[in-house]
Amino acid sequence: MDKILRVNMCVNGKPEVKVESVGDYAGLGGRGLTSAIVSKEVPPLCHPLGADNKLVIAPGSLSGSAAAMSGRISVGCKSPLTGGIKEANSGGQGAQVLARLGFAAIILEGKPENKNLYKILINKDGVQILEDNSLRMQGNYDTVDRMKSEYGDKISCISIGQAGEMMLGSASVAFTDMELRPTRHAGRGGVGAVMGAKGVKVIVLDDSGMKMRTPRDPEKFKEANKRFVSGLKKHPVTGEGLPAYGTNVLTNVVNEAGGFPTNNFKEGRFEGAPKISGEALAEMEKERGGNPTHGCHRGCVIRCSGTFIDKQGNFLTKQPEYETVWAHGANCGIDDLDAIAMLDRLDDDYGLDTIEMGATIGVAMDAGLADFGDAEAAINLVKEVGQGSALGRILGSGAGITGKVFGVERVPVVKNQSMPAYDPRAVQGIGVTYATSTMGADHTAGYSVTANLLGVGGTVDPLSPQGQVELSRNLQIATAAIDSTGMCLFIAFAILDQEDTFNAMVEMINAFSGLSLTGEDVAELGKKILKIEREFNRQAGFTEKDDRLPEYFLKESLPPHGVTFNVSDAELDSVFNF
Amino acid sequence: MDKILRVNMCVNGKPEVKVESVGDYAGLGGRGLTSAIVSKEVPPLCHPLGADNKLVIAPGSLSGSAAAMSGRISVGCKSPLTGGIKEANSGGQGAQVLARLGFAAIILEGKPENKNLYKILINKDGVQILEDNSLRMQGNYDTVDRMKSEYGDKISCISIGQAGEMMLGSASVAFTDMELRPTRHAGRGGVGAVMGAKGVKVIVLDDSGMKMRTPRDPEKFKEANKRFVSGLKKHPVTGEGLPAYGTNVLTNVVNEAGGFPTNNFKEGRFEGAPKISGEALAEMEKERGGNPTHGCHRGCVIRCSGTFIDKQGNFLTKQPEYETVWAHGANCGIDDLDAIAMLDRLDDDYGLDTIEMGATIGVAMDAGLADFGDAEAAINLVKEVGQGSALGRILGSGAGITGKVFGVERVPVVKNQSMPAYDPRAVQGIGVTYATSTMGADHTAGYSVTANLLGVGGTVDPLSPQGQVELSRNLQIATAAIDSTGMCLFIAFAILDQEDTFNAMVEMINAFSGLSLTGEDVAELGKKILKIEREFNRQAGFTEKDDRLPEYFLKESLPPHGVTFNVSDAELDSVFNF
Repeated sequence: MDKILRVNMCVNGKPEVKVESVGDYAGLGGRGLTSAIVSKEVPPLCHPLGADNKLVIAPGSLSGSAAAMSGRISVGCKSPLTGGIKEANSGGQGAQVLARLGFAAIILEGKPENKNLYKILINKDGVQILEDNSLRMQGNYDTVDRMKSEYGDKISCISIGQAGEMMLGSASVAFTDMELRPTRHAGRGGVGAVMGAKGVKVIVLDDSGMKMRTPRDPEKFKEANKRFVSGLKKHPVTGEGLPAYGTNVLTNVVNEAGGFPTNNFKEGRFEGAPKISGEALAEMEKERGGNPTHGCHRGCVIRCSGTFIDKQGNFLTKQPEYETVWAHGANCGIDDLDAIAMLDRLDDDYGLDTIEMGATIGVAMDAGLADFGDAEAAINLVKEVGQGSALGRILGSGAGITGKVFGVERVPVVKNQSMPAYDPRAVQGIGVTYATSTMGADHTAGYSVTANLLGVGGTVDPLSPQGQVELSRNLQIATAAIDSTGMCLFIAFAILDQEDTFNAMVEMINAFSGLSLTGEDVAELGKKILKIEREFNRQAGFTEKDDRLPEYFLKESLPPHGVTFNVSDAELDSVFNF
Repeated sequence: MDKILRVNMCVNGKPEVKVESVGDYAGLGGRGLTSAIVSKEVPPLCHPLGADNKLVIAPGSLSGSAAAMSGRISVGCKSPLTGGIKEANSGGQGAQVLARLGFAAIILEGKPENKNLYKILINKDGVQILEDNSLRMQGNYDTVDRMKSEYGDKISCISIGQAGEMMLGSASVAFTDMELRPTRHAGRGGVGAVMGAKGVKVIVLDDSGMKMRTPRDPEKFKEANKRFVSGLKKHPVTGEGLPAYGTNVLTNVVNEAGGFPTNNFKEGRFEGAPKISGEALAEMEKERGGNPTHGCHRGCVIRCSGTFIDKQGNFLTKQPEYETVWAHGANCGIDDLDAIAMLDRLDDDYGLDTIEMGATIGVAMDAGLADFGDAEAAINLVKEVGQGSALGRILGSGAGITGKVFGVERVPVVKNQSMPAYDPRAVQGIGVTYATSTMGADHTAGYSVTANLLGVGGTVDPLSPQGQVELSRNLQIATAAIDSTGMCLFIAFAILDQEDTFNAMVEMINAFSGLSLTGEDVAELGKKILKIEREFNRQAGFTEKDDRLPEYFLKESLPPHGVTFNVSDAELDSVFNF
């Protein structure tokens, strides 16, 4: 990982590929690297779809090694959705393969003069960029199939669907999983639109002939990794709940807590929750011959993923994540897992963020475009996006624009990005994260659900404002650091609760890198990343007024608890006091 | 004008009408009053379409008197288009009639619980509010015809068309002219969307039985008014150019100067300019039996308006303004006055800002939705808005959203509001106004075209950054004051060039009000208004980053002069150093 691949899409009218030394960026990975590059190289006031924006794809600092759970990859840019800095994080094979190919990052920059579509091929022999307009307006599934037929099944793909080509605000970047299916997505913030603006349809990676990255101290690394894995296996969330039921294990939990946003954030409990819960989903998967316990990348020991088989017995999509089940389920009043899985498949194929799309359909339903609970109508609305109709383009532009175009006041966004699957009134810690994250409303940026609902890493009353700022602050700092290692965020359950697992992780990082970091150093890294990101946003015109929830969360109380969001503006403004 | 009419659209489920004393707001008029009320009563972070926003309609402080040119009215709110404070200004009969009815302002507040449409009737006997859902999705022309048939032809109307009902970002508020036609619009910033959100379709004013407002010192007032009128008549712009050719007299001037934005701001000269110029328009109007010299309100002595007769000899619309001719003409590559007049008529009927719509069609043409120069396609695109199709709703939401939905980088907006008919690269003073005005890109907010191109009030080289900040600053201050009097901005030509005309205006104000203001006091009023507006915007989250032109104006040079916008950020940030 000592190289950076820099592709300028227009040098004298043609794309130019350069392989550079990692230089000043050495030692950084994942979000730490994408945010450093974006912050240094992208003018904060540039147009997100213009030549000056850059799309940075960076595996974590441990990716490509034997470290368990190190297969996350970061995609960074100035976001077309929020207008601020963006890091969207994905699983799949991309991180491990790109890291083994020696690349700390791919940077796509410039803007093609013509409307050509390109594919980029990276293997042990080097890098090629080829025009391929036959891929135009292909979905991710067909695109990957085409690449497989051309380059064999040892590849891994990074691609965009129709949404990315149309440069829509909800467009994702897809990463293939172990079975070479485009099921893992850097979903948030319209990163796929930036890839589309660069004219890059797909990046094909082939690490045949490349080796696993080796640690500085292999023995110590192996030992620490072993302790780390055993820590994950013994924690009830990472050792039992997630493997058995996937992330959708949360549906019953969050619904019970009254924080499961229903019918476009009108209520906190959904009558149909049991029908779409993780338990129901795992049962259905087993019955139909799917697999409820599956990893999204090699080296995963939690295996929270699964495969969803349709009524006819065919693979339809990966096991829909909790946030997808919520977005296309409760938030739209839909209690039908087959419909939700179909929506997940369509989103993956068109290359759309499932959270943004579910929130958008909820807003569209409030606008009267369909009834809450009408699954067929929801499917047809998402199909409009794939078809590129005017209505589809509105919806694909996200909940904020859909609300503006249809005159809807109730639009659950912060920094124009949709809130995920936890109502900030019933889970006030996550409300602090939504409000203040540099990323716009984002649960992963500081997952306060841990202490608010799961009793992980302590307990903080979810309905009261007390303690939420500190909780969110600490989690935001830790997350920024974890997102730089390539570690899956789900390790947080075990490292928050089990000191030895946390120590094992730090020792593993040190044994790999030859450094001698302490827990403090890890926190410092997280703070540094957040500061860089905040500064980019400030220069892009963000102020503390952007660190606020929409006013209706402060005025309308949420059933069943009858709570409003109560963390004061002054408290929100203290989150980054470090 | 000692009363305020306050209509809360939802008190115990029903609208409630209150007539209050003007109280603390006494002495203010027009923009001074709308900005004072919005700033005091509207939370800067509220949703523009929500219950907390207010729509304030205020005649100028001299409106309703015999003062020449005092028939302008201000419409203020938090703008759904910019997210900041908004004052949109209109001619027509509204100002004079509302002022004679004794109202310094109408304030629409709250939000109806149901989806009912209302009409408000105001006459000498009082105020009534009536449900009238039969008006739903009627154009402004039909709405006014309906009111005429119900309430007679002594009325004057303030109404919204389909665009306002759909709460679109380009929706205007229409005011009827002397012939009771809805041809004058408070166009900018989506004020019509706020009226739509309040559920008010039309306000019917009847001042029968009411008297002209009387000055404190009638003799002095009469004398000053006479000198003021004679000043206007002897100035070449207000005495000759505007009466003969209307505002469209500017087409040849601005085109010659290379600042006439063509094909979505790609060039500064339009080949077809002579075919759509004021001279050509006046000639056509005369030939067809129209009238090229007509006032938009009683008491106008400049009479820059006119009537446009179609090929069949029927009234089609008022004489399209220069900005409309530019927006629907050069900016879309269209050189056909009949098509431009039809677009003007459609905009007036649907209730759309012609500037925002022309800029939007230009962006849509860049997105490939139609070819530049295709007048029929442009007409069909605007018709989509009236029909409320998905495409129409996108376009009606303005150039900013249209650019986002269709992935267009070249979008000429500041604070999400479209630039008008002067390219900021070739007329750098207006560029300073576009960038820094509290209103978003707006030529009227500080009309630097005077000294940049017309040699009025001095001369400042339009192509150089020197002197532009001072020019724009002084004009922004003066404009804020003039917009408070109800005076038509076109008096500026004469008062900038002729000291005696300026003095006559100040004496007229003093004789009317019993005050003894100096020129300095007038400037202080302007400064105070701007400060209030800036503070509202700051609290709404605006920073100096919002006081910038889109980057392509700084990077792409404009033919024929080959200039970019060269006023530095630091200079822009000094505009409000007072």
